[in-house]
Amino acid sequence: MPARKPERKSQVASDDALSIRIDLASGGRIGPGKIAVLEAIAETGSISGAGRALSMSYRRTWELVEDLNQSLGKPVVATSAGGSGGGGASLTAVGEALIACYRSIETESTLVARKHLAVLNGKARQKPDL
Amino acid sequence: MPARKPERKSQVASDDALSIRIDLASGGRIGPGKIAVLEAIAETGSISGAGRALSMSYRRTWELVEDLNQSLGKPVVATSAGGSGGGGASLTAVGEALIACYRSIETESTLVARKHLAVLNGKARQKPDL
Repeated sequence: MPARKPERKSQVASDDALSIRIDLASGGRIGPGKIAVLEAIAETGSISGAGRALSMSYRRTWELVEDLNQSLGKPVVATSAGGSGGGGASLTAVGEALIACYRSIETESTLVARKHLAVLNGKARQKPDL
Repeated sequence: MPARKPERKSQVASDDALSIRIDLASGGRIGPGKIAVLEAIAETGSISGAGRALSMSYRRTWELVEDLNQSLGKPVVATSAGGSGGGGASLTAVGEALIACYRSIETESTLVARKHLAVLNGKARQKPDL
């Protein structure tokens, strides 16, 4: 017997989410991937650790950090030449502020979205000719 | 003489923008591409016209519409078997409401983003050690 395809719910719900990407007028783009890199650096204490946590190469991880440095005009990560374990990395105040900024925008925008989606949902439920 | 690379501004600005994508709990995703398809259908009066306007194949255009129909649980586009010029297409009330919903979320979320980016900008301008 073939597996039944899960039924697809059609209505908007309170766990609908919003993905956001900030498009800076300067050309920089700040989306969930780069923010995840910063959060992983804060958690692991190094760029290589963040790369491993996100299954991303060191080079790619570093490029994303460097891109954020350029976009913000200030370093978001401070690195230190390490001892036997290699260098460490930590967020600068700007890096920490960027995460807070992004997550706040995400939270508030999601509330905005749910408000409008509830209105849309009400319209989509109406019987008359669509 | 080589063209000068435009200087990259590092500060957030009032024309920073926010790209949004709605991730419905049901699994559907509604981003700028699908909304552009709906708007192009409203403008051109047909799916093929919308595809041409967006440099997209008829098949791809139709797939995006069909995906929206599934996500919303109601048709977003009504088609009519046409005469010599081929069939026409127009938005349903749900399709129109979806565009309004998306654009409202986009507008309000962008204001949210600019408010938080202004705070971040203030922090990034501070002199002390970052």
